Amino acid sequence: MAYSATSPQELEYLHHFMGIALQEAEKALQDDEVPIAAVLVAGQEIIAQNHNQTAHHNSNLAHAEMLVLEQAGQKIGRWRIRETTLFVTLEPCCMCAGAMVLARIAKVVYALADAKSGACGSIFNVPQEPRLNHQISIIGGIRSEESKVLLQQFFACKRRKPKDRRIQYYW
Amino acid sequence: MAYSATSPQELEYLHHFMGIALQEAEKALQDDEVPIAAVLVAGQEIIAQNHNQTAHHNSNLAHAEMLVLEQAGQKIGRWRIRETTLFVTLEPCCMCAGAMVLARIAKVVYALADAKSGACGSIFNVPQEPRLNHQISIIGGIRSEESKVLLQQFFACKRRKPKDRRIQYYW
Repeated sequence: MAYSATSPQELEYLHHFMGIALQEAEKALQDDEVPIAAVLVAGQEIIAQNHNQTAHHNSNLAHAEMLVLEQAGQKIGRWRIRETTLFVTLEPCCMCAGAMVLARIAKVVYALADAKSGACGSIFNVPQEPRLNHQISIIGGIRSEESKVLLQQFFACKRRKPKDRRIQYYW
Repeated sequence: MAYSATSPQELEYLHHFMGIALQEAEKALQDDEVPIAAVLVAGQEIIAQNHNQTAHHNSNLAHAEMLVLEQAGQKIGRWRIRETTLFVTLEPCCMCAGAMVLARIAKVVYALADAKSGACGSIFNVPQEPRLNHQISIIGGIRSEESKVLLQQFFACKRRKPKDRRIQYYW
Protein backbone atom coordinates (compact mmCIF):
# COMPACT_ATOMS: atom_id res chain seq x y z
CA MET A 1 0.00 0.00 0.00
CA ALA A 2 1.39 3.40 -0.98
CA TYR A 3 2.27 5.83 1.79
CA SER A 4 -0.05 8.85 2.29
CA ALA A 5 2.31 11.81 2.59
CA THR A 6 1.29 14.59 4.98
CA SER A 7 2.05 17.32 2.40
CA PRO A 8 3.03 17.70 -1.29
CA GLN A 9 6.45 18.89 -0.07
CA GLU A 10 6.98 15.70 1.92
CA LEU A 11 5.97 13.57 -1.07
CA GLU A 12 8.32 15.54 -3.31
CA TYR A 13 11.17 15.06 -0.80
CA LEU A 14 10.56 11.30 -0.60
CA HIS A 15 10.29 10.93 -4.38
CA HIS A 16 13.42 13.01 -4.96
CA PHE A 17 15.76 10.94 -2.79
CA MET A 18 14.18 7.64 -3.83
CA GLY A 19 14.89 8.76 -7.40
CA ILE A 20 18.57 9.03 -6.52
CA ALA A 21 18.44 5.55 -4.97
CA LEU A 22 16.78 4.19 -8.14
CA GLN A 23 19.52 5.76 -10.30
CA GLU A 24 22.10 4.12 -8.04
CA ALA A 25 20.26 0.78 -8.45
CA GLU A 26 20.58 1.18 -12.24
CA LYS A 27 24.37 1.29 -11.78
CA ALA A 28 24.09 -2.11 -10.06
CA LEU A 29 22.21 -3.43 -13.09
CA GLN A 30 25.01 -2.23 -15.38
CA ASP A 31 27.54 -4.00 -13.10
CA ASP A 32 25.53 -7.26 -13.23
CA GLU A 33 24.63 -6.95 -9.54
CA VAL A 34 21.10 -7.32 -8.13
CA PRO A 35 19.69 -3.78 -8.66
CA ILE A 36 19.11 -2.66 -5.09
CA ALA A 37 20.54 0.59 -3.77
CA ALA A 38 20.53 2.81 -0.68
CA VAL A 39 21.08 6.51 -0.01
CA LEU A 40 21.63 7.95 3.48
CA VAL A 41 20.40 11.52 3.88
CA ALA A 42 20.60 14.16 6.62
CA GLY A 43 18.04 16.85 5.76
CA GLN A 44 18.90 17.71 2.14
CA GLU A 45 22.46 16.38 2.27
CA ILE A 46 23.49 12.95 0.99
CA ILE A 47 25.93 11.36 3.45
CA ALA A 48 26.54 8.14 1.49
CA GLN A 49 25.07 6.12 -1.36
CA ASN A 50 25.84 2.72 -2.81
CA HIS A 51 24.35 -0.32 -4.50
CA ASN A 52 24.34 -4.03 -3.78
CA GLN A 53 27.81 -5.46 -4.41
CA THR A 54 27.44 -9.07 -3.30
CA ALA A 55 28.88 -10.44 -6.57
CA HIS A 56 31.75 -7.94 -6.72
CA HIS A 57 32.80 -8.54 -3.09
CA ASN A 58 31.83 -12.24 -3.25
CA SER A 59 30.17 -11.62 0.11
CA ASN A 60 26.60 -11.85 1.32
CA LEU A 61 27.33 -8.99 3.71
CA ALA A 62 27.76 -6.50 0.87
CA HIS A 63 24.12 -5.39 0.76
CA ALA A 64 23.62 -1.76 -0.28
CA GLU A 65 22.43 -0.73 3.20
CA MET A 66 25.48 -2.28 4.92
CA LEU A 67 27.90 -0.55 2.55
CA VAL A 68 26.14 2.79 3.05
CA LEU A 69 26.04 2.53 6.87
CA GLU A 70 29.72 1.56 6.89
CA GLN A 71 30.68 4.47 4.58
CA ALA A 72 28.60 6.93 6.59
CA GLY A 73 30.13 5.83 9.88
CA GLN A 74 33.64 6.25 8.50
CA LYS A 75 32.79 9.64 6.98
CA ILE A 76 31.17 11.02 10.13
CA GLY A 77 33.70 9.31 12.39
CA ARG A 78 31.07 7.94 14.72
CA TRP A 79 29.33 4.61 15.20
CA ARG A 80 25.94 6.22 15.51
CA ILE A 81 24.39 8.14 12.67
CA ARG A 82 21.43 9.77 14.39
CA GLU A 83 18.89 12.05 12.65
CA THR A 84 19.42 10.49 9.25
CA THR A 85 17.03 8.83 6.80
CA LEU A 86 17.94 5.77 4.76
CA PHE A 87 16.27 5.47 1.34
CA VAL A 88 16.34 1.90 0.00
CA THR A 89 14.84 0.50 -3.20
CA LEU A 90 13.84 -2.80 -1.53
CA GLU A 91 12.58 -3.41 2.00
CA PRO A 92 15.66 -4.21 4.11
CA CYS A 93 16.31 -7.76 5.35
CA CYS A 94 16.99 -8.77 8.99
CA MET A 95 20.72 -8.17 8.75
CA CYS A 96 20.31 -4.66 7.33
CA ALA A 97 17.41 -3.73 9.61
CA GLY A 98 19.47 -4.85 12.60
CA ALA A 99 22.41 -2.75 11.42
CA MET A 100 20.11 0.26 11.03
CA VAL A 101 18.99 -0.08 14.67
CA LEU A 102 22.62 -0.36 15.83
CA ALA A 103 23.45 2.77 13.80
CA ARG A 104 20.51 4.62 15.42
CA ILE A 105 19.19 6.11 12.17
CA ALA A 106 15.88 7.98 12.54
CA LYS A 107 13.90 6.80 9.52
CA VAL A 108 13.90 4.25 6.71
CA VAL A 109 12.05 4.83 3.44
CA TYR A 110 11.80 1.88 1.08
CA ALA A 111 10.31 1.43 -2.39
CA LEU A 112 9.26 -2.20 -2.86
CA ALA A 113 8.11 -4.49 -0.04
CA ASP A 114 9.85 -7.88 0.16
CA ALA A 115 7.46 -10.64 1.21
CA LYS A 116 10.28 -13.24 1.14
CA SER A 117 12.74 -11.63 3.54
CA GLY A 118 11.65 -8.09 4.46
CA ALA A 119 12.29 -7.14 8.07
CA CYS A 120 10.58 -3.74 8.12
CA GLY A 121 7.03 -5.04 8.37
CA SER A 122 6.79 -8.02 6.00
CA ILE A 123 8.27 -10.90 8.03
CA PHE A 124 9.73 -9.09 11.03
CA ASN A 125 9.41 -5.48 12.11
CA VAL A 126 12.88 -4.96 13.51
CA PRO A 127 12.96 -1.12 13.33
CA GLN A 128 9.87 -0.77 15.51
CA GLU A 129 10.42 -3.55 18.04
CA PRO A 130 9.72 -1.87 21.41
CA ARG A 131 12.08 -4.17 23.37
CA LEU A 132 15.11 -2.99 21.40
CA ASN A 133 16.79 0.18 22.67
CA HIS A 134 16.10 2.23 19.54
CA GLN A 135 13.14 2.53 17.17
CA ILE A 136 13.07 3.79 13.59
CA SER A 137 10.17 5.30 11.61
CA ILE A 138 9.22 3.38 8.48
CA ILE A 139 7.71 4.61 5.21
CA GLY A 140 7.14 1.99 2.51
CA GLY A 141 5.85 1.97 -1.08
CA ILE A 142 7.65 5.06 -2.47
CA ARG A 143 8.19 4.53 -6.24
CA SER A 144 7.81 0.80 -5.74
CA GLU A 145 6.85 0.06 -9.35
CA GLU A 146 10.13 1.48 -10.66
CA SER A 147 12.10 -0.68 -8.26
CA LYS A 148 10.07 -3.74 -9.27
CA VAL A 149 10.76 -3.11 -12.97
CA LEU A 150 14.52 -2.93 -12.31
CA LEU A 151 14.48 -6.23 -10.41
CA GLN A 152 12.33 -7.88 -13.09
CA GLN A 153 14.76 -6.71 -15.80
CA PHE A 154 17.65 -8.23 -13.89
CA PHE A 155 16.04 -11.59 -13.23
CA ALA A 156 14.54 -11.86 -16.74
CA CYS A 157 18.06 -11.44 -18.11
CA LYS A 158 19.45 -14.09 -15.72
CA ARG A 159 16.75 -16.56 -16.74
CA ARG A 160 17.83 -16.30 -20.37
CA LYS A 161 21.26 -17.67 -19.49
CA PRO A 162 21.81 -21.47 -19.65
CA LYS A 163 21.19 -22.95 -16.21
CA ASP A 164 24.81 -24.01 -15.63
CA ARG A 165 26.02 -20.45 -16.28
CA ARG A 166 23.59 -18.84 -13.87
CA ILE A 167 24.80 -17.41 -10.59
CA GLN A 168 22.61 -18.10 -7.56
CA TYR A 169 21.31 -14.79 -6.28
CA TYR A 170 19.68 -13.65 -3.08
CA TRP A 171 19.37 -10.30 -1.42
CA MET B 1 18.28 -22.83 30.62
CA ALA B 2 21.25 -25.08 29.93
CA TYR B 3 21.08 -27.32 26.88
CA SER B 4 20.62 -31.06 27.46
CA ALA B 5 23.19 -32.71 25.22
CA THR B 6 22.23 -36.00 23.61
CA SER B 7 25.56 -37.64 24.58
CA PRO B 8 28.71 -36.92 26.64
CA GLN B 9 30.60 -36.68 23.32
CA GLU B 10 28.26 -33.98 22.05
CA LEU B 11 28.62 -32.01 25.30
CA GLU B 12 32.40 -32.34 25.12
CA TYR B 13 32.36 -31.12 21.50
CA LEU B 14 30.21 -28.09 22.38
CA HIS B 15 32.32 -27.23 25.45
CA HIS B 16 35.56 -27.60 23.51
CA PHE B 17 34.72 -25.12 20.74
CA MET B 18 32.96 -22.73 23.10
CA GLY B 19 36.19 -22.77 25.13
CA ILE B 20 38.06 -21.55 22.04
CA ALA B 21 35.45 -18.82 21.57
CA LEU B 22 35.86 -17.79 25.24
CA GLN B 23 39.66 -17.60 24.81
CA GLU B 24 39.10 -15.43 21.74
CA ALA B 25 36.77 -13.21 23.81
CA GLU B 26 39.57 -12.75 26.35
CA LYS B 27 41.69 -11.29 23.56
CA ALA B 28 38.93 -8.70 23.04
CA LEU B 29 39.12 -7.83 26.73
CA GLN B 30 42.86 -7.27 26.43
CA ASP B 31 42.22 -4.99 23.41
CA ASP B 32 39.60 -2.98 25.37
CA GLU B 33 36.81 -4.29 23.14
CA VAL B 34 33.53 -5.75 24.44
CA PRO B 35 34.53 -9.39 25.12
CA ILE B 36 32.36 -11.25 22.64
CA ALA B 37 33.83 -13.74 20.18
CA ALA B 38 32.82 -16.22 17.50
CA VAL B 39 34.35 -19.36 16.00
CA LEU B 40 33.07 -21.01 12.80
CA VAL B 41 33.60 -24.75 12.68
CA ALA B 42 33.13 -27.47 10.06
CA GLY B 43 33.26 -30.83 11.88
CA GLN B 44 36.50 -30.57 13.87
CA GLU B 45 38.06 -27.86 11.72
CA ILE B 46 38.04 -24.17 12.60
CA ILE B 47 37.29 -22.14 9.46
CA ALA B 48 37.53 -18.68 11.08
CA GLN B 49 37.55 -17.05 14.51
CA ASN B 50 37.48 -13.46 15.68
CA HIS B 51 36.29 -11.12 18.43
CA ASN B 52 34.21 -7.99 18.53
CA GLN B 53 36.16 -5.09 17.02
CA THR B 54 33.64 -2.25 17.04
CA ALA B 55 36.05 0.14 18.78
CA HIS B 56 39.04 -0.78 16.61
CA HIS B 57 37.08 -0.42 13.34
CA ASN B 58 34.96 2.44 14.72
CA SER B 59 32.04 0.58 13.19
CA ASN B 60 28.93 -0.99 14.62
CA LEU B 61 29.10 -3.59 11.88
CA ALA B 62 32.29 -5.11 13.30
CA HIS B 63 30.56 -7.66 15.53
CA ALA B 64 32.49 -10.91 16.00
CA GLU B 65 29.96 -12.93 13.99
CA MET B 66 30.08 -10.54 11.01
CA LEU B 67 33.89 -10.61 10.92
CA VAL B 68 33.93 -14.40 11.10
CA LEU B 69 31.30 -14.88 8.37
CA GLU B 70 33.16 -12.42 6.14
CA GLN B 71 36.52 -14.16 6.76
CA ALA B 72 35.01 -17.60 6.17
CA GLY B 73 33.36 -16.51 2.91
CA GLN B 74 36.64 -15.12 1.61
CA LYS B 75 38.57 -18.21 2.72
CA ILE B 76 36.12 -20.69 1.17
CA GLY B 77 35.52 -18.47 -1.86
CA ARG B 78 31.75 -18.82 -1.68
CA TRP B 79 28.89 -16.69 -0.33
CA ARG B 80 27.29 -19.67 1.32
CA ILE B 81 28.99 -21.55 4.13
CA ARG B 82 26.72 -24.57 4.46
CA GLU B 83 27.25 -27.39 7.01
CA THR B 84 29.10 -25.20 9.48
CA THR B 85 28.44 -24.36 13.14
CA LEU B 86 28.99 -20.90 14.59
CA PHE B 87 30.00 -20.79 18.27
CA VAL B 88 29.35 -17.37 19.84
CA THR B 89 29.84 -16.24 23.44
CA LEU B 90 26.69 -14.05 23.41
CA GLU B 91 23.36 -14.67 21.69
CA PRO B 92 23.60 -12.98 18.26
CA CYS B 93 21.66 -9.78 17.53
CA CYS B 94 19.32 -9.23 14.56
CA MET B 95 22.07 -8.08 12.24
CA CYS B 96 24.26 -11.11 12.95
CA ALA B 97 21.38 -13.60 12.95
CA GLY B 98 20.26 -12.21 9.58
CA ALA B 99 23.79 -12.58 8.22
CA MET B 100 23.90 -16.18 9.49
CA VAL B 101 20.72 -16.99 7.53
CA LEU B 102 22.14 -15.37 4.39
CA ALA B 103 25.32 -17.41 4.82
CA ARG B 104 23.25 -20.60 5.19
CA ILE B 105 25.15 -21.94 8.20
CA ALA B 106 23.65 -25.10 9.73
CA LYS B 107 23.85 -24.41 13.47
CA VAL B 108 24.52 -21.67 16.00
CA VAL B 109 25.73 -22.43 19.53
CA TYR B 110 25.78 -19.53 21.97
CA ALA B 111 26.87 -19.18 25.58
CA LEU B 112 24.93 -16.35 27.24
CA ALA B 113 21.39 -15.32 26.27
CA ASP B 114 20.88 -11.61 25.59
CA ALA B 115 17.50 -10.37 26.81
CA LYS B 116 18.19 -6.84 25.49
CA SER B 117 18.90 -7.61 21.85
CA GLY B 118 19.16 -11.37 21.26
CA ALA B 119 17.65 -12.55 17.98
CA CYS B 120 18.05 -16.31 18.46
CA GLY B 121 15.07 -16.74 20.78
CA SER B 122 15.15 -13.82 23.22
CA ILE B 123 13.52 -10.98 21.24
CA PHE B 124 13.29 -12.46 17.76
CA ASN B 125 13.97 -15.96 16.54
CA VAL B 126 15.49 -15.16 13.16
CA PRO B 127 17.32 -18.49 12.60
CA GLN B 128 14.13 -20.52 12.90
CA GLU B 129 11.63 -18.26 11.14
CA PRO B 130 9.77 -20.64 8.78
CA ARG B 131 8.97 -17.91 6.21
CA LEU B 132 12.67 -17.29 5.51
CA ASN B 133 14.29 -19.57 2.93
CA HIS B 134 16.77 -21.14 5.36
CA GLN B 135 16.56 -22.29 8.98
CA ILE B 136 19.37 -22.82 11.48
CA SER B 137 19.48 -25.08 14.56
CA ILE B 138 20.06 -23.25 17.84
CA ILE B 139 21.77 -24.43 21.04
CA GLY B 140 21.99 -21.91 23.88
CA GLY B 141 23.48 -21.82 27.38
CA ILE B 142 26.85 -23.54 26.73
CA ARG B 143 29.39 -22.17 29.29
CA SER B 144 27.19 -19.12 29.80
CA GLU B 145 28.60 -18.27 33.24
CA GLU B 146 32.11 -17.86 31.88
CA SER B 147 30.86 -15.51 29.17
CA LYS B 148 28.90 -13.52 31.76
CA VAL B 149 31.98 -13.13 33.96
CA LEU B 150 34.01 -11.76 31.02
CA LEU B 151 31.31 -9.19 30.20
CA GLN B 152 30.97 -8.21 33.86
CA GLN B 153 34.74 -7.71 34.13
CA PHE B 154 34.67 -5.43 31.09
CA PHE B 155 31.74 -3.29 32.21
CA ALA B 156 32.94 -3.08 35.83
CA CYS B 157 36.20 -1.67 34.50
CA LYS B 158 34.36 0.85 32.28
CA ARG B 159 32.23 2.04 35.19
CA ARG B 160 35.35 2.96 37.15
CA LYS B 161 36.31 5.51 34.47
CA PRO B 162 35.06 9.11 34.90
CA LYS B 163 31.79 9.53 32.97
CA ASP B 164 33.21 11.93 30.37
CA ARG B 165 35.98 9.46 29.50
CA ARG B 166 33.65 6.53 28.97
CA ILE B 167 32.93 5.20 25.53
CA GLN B 168 29.32 4.31 24.82
CA TYR B 169 29.16 0.60 24.14
CA TYR B 170 26.58 -1.67 22.62
CA TRP B 171 26.79 -5.06 21.02
